[in-house]
Amino acid sequence: MSDLRKIVKVRGREISGDHPHICVPLIGKNKLEIINELENVKQKKPDLIEWRADFFEDLDDRLIVMEMLSEIHTHMPDTPILFTIRSEKEGGQPISLLEEEKVQLMAEVCKSGKIDILDYELINEKQDIEFLREESKNHDIRFILSYHNFESTPDYSVLMDKYKEAELYGADIAKTAVMSQKLDDVLLLLQVTHDAKGLVQLPLVTMSMGNYGSLTRMFGFVFGSAITFGIGEKSSAPGQIPIEDLRSVIEIIKKSM
Amino acid sequence: MSDLRKIVKVRGREISGDHPHICVPLIGKNKLEIINELENVKQKKPDLIEWRADFFEDLDDRLIVMEMLSEIHTHMPDTPILFTIRSEKEGGQPISLLEEEKVQLMAEVCKSGKIDILDYELINEKQDIEFLREESKNHDIRFILSYHNFESTPDYSVLMDKYKEAELYGADIAKTAVMSQKLDDVLLLLQVTHDAKGLVQLPLVTMSMGNYGSLTRMFGFVFGSAITFGIGEKSSAPGQIPIEDLRSVIEIIKKSM
Repeated sequence: MSDLRKIVKVRGREISGDHPHICVPLIGKNKLEIINELENVKQKKPDLIEWRADFFEDLDDRLIVMEMLSEIHTHMPDTPILFTIRSEKEGGQPISLLEEEKVQLMAEVCKSGKIDILDYELINEKQDIEFLREESKNHDIRFILSYHNFESTPDYSVLMDKYKEAELYGADIAKTAVMSQKLDDVLLLLQVTHDAKGLVQLPLVTMSMGNYGSLTRMFGFVFGSAITFGIGEKSSAPGQIPIEDLRSVIEIIKKSM
Repeated sequence: MSDLRKIVKVRGREISGDHPHICVPLIGKNKLEIINELENVKQKKPDLIEWRADFFEDLDDRLIVMEMLSEIHTHMPDTPILFTIRSEKEGGQPISLLEEEKVQLMAEVCKSGKIDILDYELINEKQDIEFLREESKNHDIRFILSYHNFESTPDYSVLMDKYKEAELYGADIAKTAVMSQKLDDVLLLLQVTHDAKGLVQLPLVTMSMGNYGSLTRMFGFVFGSAITFGIGEKSSAPGQIPIEDLRSVIEIIKKSM
């Protein structure tokens, strides 16, 4: 299948699943907090940064959002930016925008060219997903379709269907982040990731959350997860690991295989 | 089940499966080589050392074997010694002793009190296994019953039966080391380890060998493997990792969980 596999390129980086890209979230609620995070995070040279804009208190002010994006880009000009407004029902913060306003903001962010990748959830309306897929494509922005479950790890077939669904929508990357309640959940997540790698063509980003799940953040790449989220300054999800530790473990795993 | 779980104690160390003990093999073929290995290995402070006596060219000379054991003990007086004559059919070196002579030597080694743990394979004759279980018990030596497969990873039920068989023989620890041909084999080994931890009471030592399998040497302890074999100076099996790297990864995993 490897010849059919899609490789996603952002700023010279190839996201394919053979090498884990370390992504660090920015979760400041205002410009000052985010700049402080950036000052810290840029020393650690992550492969990607995710602006979790649902934490941002001025999300309803389009101009301030665009200024903030320019600021992030100025601080880390060579690092691809993933733009995410995680919805509350999938573990994000409450925001003042209606879904329609959020989708419009995302489209404008794509149009601005200030980001490299856009994340949107599979749980959303078909027409919104299709609109943002189209808008992102028009502006050469990569599109992640994601699924989150902060309660539990769903069955194998539910997870597999998420990757297939993302592929059907024409996403560039499919992401699932699910809570592990027990070690069996960790093994299930790794197995479905490994199997999906042979069944869908787009790169996958998969992880178990929680204490047990932290294992998948370290060695999930071996099973096919192309991006791992680490702590730069602050954690944005349960089980995240400091970027220095992630990098150490990944280097040792690569050397040993 | 945890209240029923057996804890194996050697020289103040508790081998229970909650913490991975790092064991380093000595594979020198004569006294000089082994002393060189010891000089290197003792700097790295492993939790256990395994003398793989099948590599030793004077294995047929009981006095030299006893002297060598004293020498190992003198170099690392606080480190428990695991004594192994791995049989050729399970991945060991060819030796000049007949099985009967080997069993007698093992019994004498137990009697000498110079070792802490004895390894013997489940594949051997029932009467020899029972004899060595008895001899080791009489001299307060812990007894590992082991199974190796350098070709492939057998089915789930085959592996599970090995742990149950070791328990029926009254072993203190059950060990399986099997070759992984693919990532599914790694997940199978971890799943059966995790399940066996709830079904048998004795501590388990499990690993996948080969490139993929090296993963299990790092994080197998999370699933219930109580000992991991690392490289002090030289590797004794495919996929072993330097002790410094093992220790780094284990520390990060423990911190992250």
